[in-house]
Amino acid sequence: MTDSTSPALAYLEHCRTRIDHELAQGIQQASVSDRLQEAMRYSVLGGGKRIRPALCLAAARAVGSLEDAAVAPACSLELIHAYSLVHDDLPAMDDDDLRRGRPTAHIAFDEATAILAGDALQTLAFTLLADAPQLSDTQRVSMIAELARASGHQGMVGGQAIDLESVGLALNIEQLETMHRHKTGALIEASVRLGALTAPGVSEQHLSALSDYASALGLAFQVQDDLLDIEGDTEIIGKRQGSDAAKAKPTYPALLGLDGARERLGALLQQSKQALDGLGEEAAPLRAMADYVVSRNH
Amino acid sequence: MTDSTSPALAYLEHCRTRIDHELAQGIQQASVSDRLQEAMRYSVLGGGKRIRPALCLAAARAVGSLEDAAVAPACSLELIHAYSLVHDDLPAMDDDDLRRGRPTAHIAFDEATAILAGDALQTLAFTLLADAPQLSDTQRVSMIAELARASGHQGMVGGQAIDLESVGLALNIEQLETMHRHKTGALIEASVRLGALTAPGVSEQHLSALSDYASALGLAFQVQDDLLDIEGDTEIIGKRQGSDAAKAKPTYPALLGLDGARERLGALLQQSKQALDGLGEEAAPLRAMADYVVSRNH
Repeated sequence: MTDSTSPALAYLEHCRTRIDHELAQGIQQASVSDRLQEAMRYSVLGGGKRIRPALCLAAARAVGSLEDAAVAPACSLELIHAYSLVHDDLPAMDDDDLRRGRPTAHIAFDEATAILAGDALQTLAFTLLADAPQLSDTQRVSMIAELARASGHQGMVGGQAIDLESVGLALNIEQLETMHRHKTGALIEASVRLGALTAPGVSEQHLSALSDYASALGLAFQVQDDLLDIEGDTEIIGKRQGSDAAKAKPTYPALLGLDGARERLGALLQQSKQALDGLGEEAAPLRAMADYVVSRNH
Repeated sequence: MTDSTSPALAYLEHCRTRIDHELAQGIQQASVSDRLQEAMRYSVLGGGKRIRPALCLAAARAVGSLEDAAVAPACSLELIHAYSLVHDDLPAMDDDDLRRGRPTAHIAFDEATAILAGDALQTLAFTLLADAPQLSDTQRVSMIAELARASGHQGMVGGQAIDLESVGLALNIEQLETMHRHKTGALIEASVRLGALTAPGVSEQHLSALSDYASALGLAFQVQDDLLDIEGDTEIIGKRQGSDAAKAKPTYPALLGLDGARERLGALLQQSKQALDGLGEEAAPLRAMADYVVSRNH
């Protein structure tokens, strides 16, 4: 962890405190099945860096909104992320038994409960947006439309499908980036855009700059993930080191070499921060988050 | 099939034509994975009675709305229903290999694709509501909130969790109904309520009457399902006859006997139709649907 990450770490900690409280409240709403509710809580509240919520809150600040208005959208993003992890870890998918340093949901509970918990976490994301305080119905609808597009078959789930189809195949760098732009990039971009949409009159120009920031950052995030899979420590990264290589998944280092991947990471960081040039001091947390994403050790 | 079902059959056919066209359009929107999109299409467009969309369109008519305004909500209900079937059929859940007379999605494709297709179908339901034409943003938000509540951990998914937990247990009739009110009832009630919400000024009184109608109808639907599992023909019902009993699932006939279950069915039908007493001739399709639900042979 370098010095450049400390402002982001403080900001992430601040975001986590706000978000985790709201997430716990959201899941608390009476369910008819204690086991299902417990699996949802386990999957959402068991750690995690809260990068997407933090990007959402940081984008709200960058366009001059109050943080309060961005809390529900931020939670909805984390719920979508959490559901995707639960389903991705299933035996029929990536078959992972360790996540965030703990047994994955289908190991801690059972496969059926994990499938249902994932399903219900997705639904809850839309409940939170439909009920989001301090926003107009028009803002709620815009956010729901953006989140759905980013997370469905045209976004995250589509990317996950490409990922599964690509195991063992020789992707080129364009195909790899297409996969990542969907699998992780779309939701990271939505995180920033939902934050910006908390400002009722946010300009197209700001929205577009923030999308560019997020688009580069999303890829940078993935390059760093690939590097950590090779260089990271299982205990710190919270999942098995080398698990991508073991599954013959295409990665940046495999295509560009270690040095090439590190170079790409630097270029993406620069691209990401340059996109914020038209924004002022209010965008400091977004800039800090970019530094964090490329330097994090888990 | 008795004479009392013919008006409903004509109405269902009318609804299916409208809905299936819109559903095909919705899924057509470019996905990045052909296989995922194909699995979504297979799971949604491969038959099905379209009871939920028909209830939604019929409720819209009952409160004096134009059918056009109810088409997108009707599609969203069918998408939630379709996703729940795909996930319920998975090996870790009900492990069914036959649905609507065809191999289930995880057999026709593979388990991972079935999980993702279900996930994406749920998301698409919310996209359709967020983009629904002829509705105000306030109506869209109300419908999204209702649909999410009916289908998440407080509704359908919660009911499915109870169902899984109940296999082999001796439920009493109250516990059985609690399960069904969540597992199938909540979405049937949402079908009718979303249809009614197409009328911007729909009265609380009408909404409440329609909820009562749907609540009784939802249980009636389940009683008839249980009876068909015993008395039906595998070829006609499109899934294995006797599959509930084989899994030691609690059913109405098991708890009330065949005659008792048929009696309960009659009482629920009456209750359902009585709830519509305050509505006029415009509610005829809803009445026809009630007759259909208790007399259908699949």
